[in-house]
Amino acid sequence: MASFDSLTFITDYGLEDGFVAACHGVAARIAPAARVIDITHLVQPGDVRRGAAVLAQTIPYLPPAVHVAVVDPGVGTARRGVAVQAGDSILVGPDNGLLSWAVAAQGGAERAVQLTNGDLWLHPVSPTFHGRDIFMPVAAHLAAGTDLASAGDEIDLADLVTLPAPTSRVRDGEAEGEVMSVDRFGNVQLSIVGRRHLTVPFLETFAAVAPGEIVAFTDSAGLISLAVNAGDAAQQLGLPPGAHVRLSVARPS
Amino acid sequence: MASFDSLTFITDYGLEDGFVAACHGVAARIAPAARVIDITHLVQPGDVRRGAAVLAQTIPYLPPAVHVAVVDPGVGTARRGVAVQAGDSILVGPDNGLLSWAVAAQGGAERAVQLTNGDLWLHPVSPTFHGRDIFMPVAAHLAAGTDLASAGDEIDLADLVTLPAPTSRVRDGEAEGEVMSVDRFGNVQLSIVGRRHLTVPFLETFAAVAPGEIVAFTDSAGLISLAVNAGDAAQQLGLPPGAHVRLSVARPS
Amino acid sequence: MASFDSLTFITDYGLEDGFVAACHGVAARIAPAARVIDITHLVQPGDVRRGAAVLAQTIPYLPPAVHVAVVDPGVGTARRGVAVQAGDSILVGPDNGLLSWAVAAQGGAERAVQLTNGDLWLHPVSPTFHGRDIFMPVAAHLAAGTDLASAGDEIDLADLVTLPAPTSRVRDGEAEGEVMSVDRFGNVQLSIVGRRHLTVPFLETFAAVAPGEIVAFTDSAGLISLAVNAGDAAQQLGLPPGAHVRLSVARPS
Repeated sequence: MASFDSLTFITDYGLEDGFVAACHGVAARIAPAARVIDITHLVQPGDVRRGAAVLAQTIPYLPPAVHVAVVDPGVGTARRGVAVQAGDSILVGPDNGLLSWAVAAQGGAERAVQLTNGDLWLHPVSPTFHGRDIFMPVAAHLAAGTDLASAGDEIDLADLVTLPAPTSRVRDGEAEGEVMSVDRFGNVQLSIVGRRHLTVPFLETFAAVAPGEIVAFTDSAGLISLAVNAGDAAQQLGLPPGAHVRLSVARPS
Repeated sequence: MASFDSLTFITDYGLEDGFVAACHGVAARIAPAARVIDITHLVQPGDVRRGAAVLAQTIPYLPPAVHVAVVDPGVGTARRGVAVQAGDSILVGPDNGLLSWAVAAQGGAERAVQLTNGDLWLHPVSPTFHGRDIFMPVAAHLAAGTDLASAGDEIDLADLVTLPAPTSRVRDGEAEGEVMSVDRFGNVQLSIVGRRHLTVPFLETFAAVAPGEIVAFTDSAGLISLAVNAGDAAQQLGLPPGAHVRLSVARPS
Repeated sequence: MASFDSLTFITDYGLEDGFVAACHGVAARIAPAARVIDITHLVQPGDVRRGAAVLAQTIPYLPPAVHVAVVDPGVGTARRGVAVQAGDSILVGPDNGLLSWAVAAQGGAERAVQLTNGDLWLHPVSPTFHGRDIFMPVAAHLAAGTDLASAGDEIDLADLVTLPAPTSRVRDGEAEGEVMSVDRFGNVQLSIVGRRHLTVPFLETFAAVAPGEIVAFTDSAGLISLAVNAGDAAQQLGLPPGAHVRLSVARPS
């Protein structure tokens, strides 16, 4: 019956409508003592991989919490809702892979239930807004001390949907990876972990090159990113999310 | 002298300037114990109808609160500021109709005052920023326990400005309505309440049709919305807010 | 060992990634009792002057707090991090001038330290994300009661980097100034303080002229702004931030 001081919340709901606020209101009614930390609500509509990546990269810095994630193009269909205990936290959302990278970042799932106990939901349940009517109310009850087992039927951890890991390969001085994300600064994050010598200079940070020059660096999530100092690498290199990239090792001259 | 745990806040101030934060700061100084729930600050500048619709559709999910709404193209002119008690909450804002649909959603106004007591305001009052200098400080005082009557002179409920309801008509198997809003997903919300058989399939949710197909469904606010599964209905159908739409009943074949 | 109830936070991180949330998470772990007020995270990437202006114009309305500001194109280079005591608050950020106008608005710096005590940081420190790994953890420790002197070595106040004030000149009935900012409504804020008679009508508020007409008024920050009632002055006049403007006094006719 542990309770949580914090809820966190990531969706593709956007900030122009009242969708996020309705969920905050639901949380405030059920778990008034819990703080809510918004991760982002600007995941591109239905982009489950992007939501999974942001959640997984942010969760190591969040306090123990019930983390609510809703990027759910299959809302209202047969896909199930789940709550997964992992590390010091519980993750709640659709079982479409959205939670899977964050669960791995937390050390793996320890216990999971399918959300079948309608007593914890808001009624009537809108078929298009499970964030407000199922995921957030269940999460708020868990934050307020309701036991995970009360949320529904325990399920086999091996049955949880997981997203395939981004492609990444390093061979003969070449690294090949997928563009994981393009951030607000135009920095291009690749699915290559660690440090390698590339044909672009590999330095501590983008500010180490002159304005307008390209550089590779280990970013704040531990992945390799490409940046243009004071510029937009994604635009300059034409690299949208999902693009594939190969980088060659620079021979020290 | 009831006090409120929550303030909520909806405006057209946007998120790029410090306008919203200045209001949050004012609230924190006057009512430090109250949580602030932001509904949205991305109402299109001056779009009173849109602000009214978002507030009315969100308020049923918010906790008892002092709700502050500022979409106020007439700021600094003769239009008056008001605080209206309705249901378990108080609504504060300009008397330009912005509050009217939410007041109705709360069961109607029970008491209203014109904001005339300058002792509750911040001075000097900027003629262009009543959100910071009048509405939020008054709301924060109300949240902290100041009685509604202290905010100003009681006014006749019949004198409150109300927005005309959106046009909506159902006749001979045809439903006619106004586009209430277009959400982030491109879903087109119509001013038609309830369930009817239309020439587009009427189903539980947009995910019930194949990607790219159009569907009508009862949305999370209880209105009829048009959606394209994994697509943008507003763009595909050319339906901006305010457009008028007629839908025909599909004959079961 | 004073502690603070509030942290405030302004950056150019944007809202699409998890950057802001990671910092909120760090704050919640170190100073769980402190509320966080977000000023804005939509400062244009690297626009130090804009960040400085928004912070300085908002800070008078914020409660006593540790204010964290990160617009930091030189992150990871030799520029130092600082914490500056000014008035009832402490400001934390890079020493690139970002804090300087707000420090002046608080009455000037009273004490400053360079952030050299790594015991207050998160490790490993990412060379590109000092907001998460240095500025926010230090600020949260200060909010939780850690003494300013513990954050690092005291430095000479005269050594703090300050931004040059915006150009502004009034002479012979002409006022000359720089465009400080363009807000969401298209209002153009000039670096001219106070009230003067200009060739555009100078009135209390933009709503005092007919829709589509231009007007000058003293804005909510005490500066002169140009607006078009129900329109976009910046677009209509072609005035981006940094543009220079000269306004003539209107002779009363």
